[in-house]
Amino acid sequence: MSMKAEVNAARLLASVAEFAAIGATPAGGVNRPALSIEDRAARRRLAERALARGFTVFQDGIANLFIRREGRNAALPPLLIGSHLDSQPTGGRFDGALGTLSAFEVLEALADAEIETDRAVEVVAFTNEEGSRYSPGCMGSMAFAGAGTAGDWAATPATDGLLLADELAATLAALPEATVGPTGHPISAFVELHIEQGPVLEQEDVPIGVVTAVQGTKWFEIVFSGTAAHAGTTPFEFRKDPMGAAAAAIASLQSTVMPADPAARLTVGRISAEPGSINVIPSSVSFTVDIRHPDAAILAEMEQQVRRQCDEEGRRWNCDVAISQRVDMAPGRFSSSIATTIEDASRSLGLKSRRMVSGAFHDALFVSRVAPAAMIFVPCRDGISHNEAEFVTDAHMISGARVLLAVVESMLQLG
Amino acid sequence: MSMKAEVNAARLLASVAEFAAIGATPAGGVNRPALSIEDRAARRRLAERALARGFTVFQDGIANLFIRREGRNAALPPLLIGSHLDSQPTGGRFDGALGTLSAFEVLEALADAEIETDRAVEVVAFTNEEGSRYSPGCMGSMAFAGAGTAGDWAATPATDGLLLADELAATLAALPEATVGPTGHPISAFVELHIEQGPVLEQEDVPIGVVTAVQGTKWFEIVFSGTAAHAGTTPFEFRKDPMGAAAAAIASLQSTVMPADPAARLTVGRISAEPGSINVIPSSVSFTVDIRHPDAAILAEMEQQVRRQCDEEGRRWNCDVAISQRVDMAPGRFSSSIATTIEDASRSLGLKSRRMVSGAFHDALFVSRVAPAAMIFVPCRDGISHNEAEFVTDAHMISGARVLLAVVESMLQLG
Repeated sequence: MSMKAEVNAARLLASVAEFAAIGATPAGGVNRPALSIEDRAARRRLAERALARGFTVFQDGIANLFIRREGRNAALPPLLIGSHLDSQPTGGRFDGALGTLSAFEVLEALADAEIETDRAVEVVAFTNEEGSRYSPGCMGSMAFAGAGTAGDWAATPATDGLLLADELAATLAALPEATVGPTGHPISAFVELHIEQGPVLEQEDVPIGVVTAVQGTKWFEIVFSGTAAHAGTTPFEFRKDPMGAAAAAIASLQSTVMPADPAARLTVGRISAEPGSINVIPSSVSFTVDIRHPDAAILAEMEQQVRRQCDEEGRRWNCDVAISQRVDMAPGRFSSSIATTIEDASRSLGLKSRRMVSGAFHDALFVSRVAPAAMIFVPCRDGISHNEAEFVTDAHMISGARVLLAVVESMLQLG
Repeated sequence: MSMKAEVNAARLLASVAEFAAIGATPAGGVNRPALSIEDRAARRRLAERALARGFTVFQDGIANLFIRREGRNAALPPLLIGSHLDSQPTGGRFDGALGTLSAFEVLEALADAEIETDRAVEVVAFTNEEGSRYSPGCMGSMAFAGAGTAGDWAATPATDGLLLADELAATLAALPEATVGPTGHPISAFVELHIEQGPVLEQEDVPIGVVTAVQGTKWFEIVFSGTAAHAGTTPFEFRKDPMGAAAAAIASLQSTVMPADPAARLTVGRISAEPGSINVIPSSVSFTVDIRHPDAAILAEMEQQVRRQCDEEGRRWNCDVAISQRVDMAPGRFSSSIATTIEDASRSLGLKSRRMVSGAFHDALFVSRVAPAAMIFVPCRDGISHNEAEFVTDAHMISGARVLLAVVESMLQLG
């Protein structure tokens, strides 16, 4: 063999800047909805660069895009790395793109060094991770993991009205260089680099997050119903005030669930009262509850706590309560051996790392159902993501890509 | 003198039905906005009936409409009775109209019985009590009490865009039979019959409420500001969650203020969170607080309690809090001697009565600043008002008018 593989920092930063221009927004963010013209442009650019380097490109039935650098033994399942290229409508330039382009940089670094590997290495850009144009998100990785098919979502309308089936066909057709293969081919493992989308790494000044699990998530819509009445003329004992019940339930949950368990998350992001007049006791108050935990049993107990608290306050305030569940996503555990590999790789590069749980969904969550998977997080400024202000320093981008390369080399037993 | 004055029950009920047809809504309510075509039609009908009975009619500068039955001594200030004829956009047929038409029935009953009085008795229909087309409400009684002039509100636009000055001039001109006199002529006293707009009388099965005071009211808009962040990725210790602060403040106020003082009212009728996504910790939560109490000093202490609680929860949840005041209306006390007169009159008619505080504003609140004033409440079904479903039984209407007549007779030292 050959020279040592090295991340080309200038090339990586140029890649990120190049892709940030595809669907760029005036405020410095990116609007690159899944399966849109902009998404197709980004996929084309990546495919062109891959073909120019002599890699092969192919797609699957849900338009996941793969870039393959062949190994000595084409029969071995490839090692998969990558993320996604679609964005939120007012998204940042790093969410998804950084992981995809870092993975491509790893492929180029291996090629630069003329390193031969036994098994192939593949870069993937999963389709529709964000779920903002077509719901649900993580469609590409779900399909890859056998948790759904393009046919299941064919009739899904976009927020702009176009059907998924039509936009999917147009996206596949827009890249005729890439043959369309079966969805969900065997892989040896999957490693995804991604921005943290939270504040922990930055606050602790740690450049590498070793993601050991993804929290499970449950969403609820809760409606307390009472009786609308005049604010001035209705004495306390005649009131059926759903605002009293809602505030008491939220206050109680907010002040107990998270303080008791650092791994627990509970968020009330939306609330409204009907009819919504200053001088009218509401007839109903509706709010959402988002609970998350990496442990499925504890998450289930959190759900019971939400239900018990709402029932109790409903009784106390003479109000009815209705609870409907919107999302129920089980927690995922990543490969502990890959986590150790990421820690070792970080240490060998002189980079501090810390184990952490992802609070957001990621493609790796679904892929982990069919292969060993793990994630590398890099810090983002103020934890801000899904926002045009999303920002990652050059140094953190480069460190992340270097760790990803070292992990790949380790997993391929190189060097 | 003459026969005994008696309320003509059939005529009273026919009057209420007749006026309910002016601006009638399909659902059985009334839409008769202040100074509108419908309001002018109601005023015209009342003036026509007055002139037909030989009463005189006049208006003042804010278009308060007066019906005068002359007394033996025209120099004595008249006894004023009445209420208002305007309604909420989807109002009921009793709010205001019942008090005005009961007062007119009293005038007709005195005339039927050919009873002479020393001082004149005047019926008033105050302009724009509701405040829904032109803000503020109680304009007519405020102007009558010297708390404002038509000029102050001349440029006020209606919800339909027409200026108050123009609609006022058109309303005055639409009743050329009624001369326009000065605003705020001397009166001996004012008695207003009104529906309770609350549940107490019906629940306690008491037909007559003796209103001793009107609650003071303060309205606040409270905004807690924190930092929007991802529901999954942001640990508790990094959160600045305004929902936590708002829910805790509301829950604490709701569970302490009213239970501690049966005369206190505290209502949160409106609430919202920005940006309002299920999986985003809100950047801000805004809500309204309506507090009421008949005692000004206690109301001021309630305000301080609201402010303290919000400051405390703001600190506890690392959020900023901004409190702005929207309404500050002082409590009013009614004449205790007229209250006793109402109690005596009820007792003499075999009707149970109970003293109570009004939770809503009324014209009598403003008139009480310039003359002894009091109110008689009658029950309304389920306490519902400002609603097309507003309903008063015939028996309660008749009882109320009979008490009003007896009170007038007592105050005029008749019988």
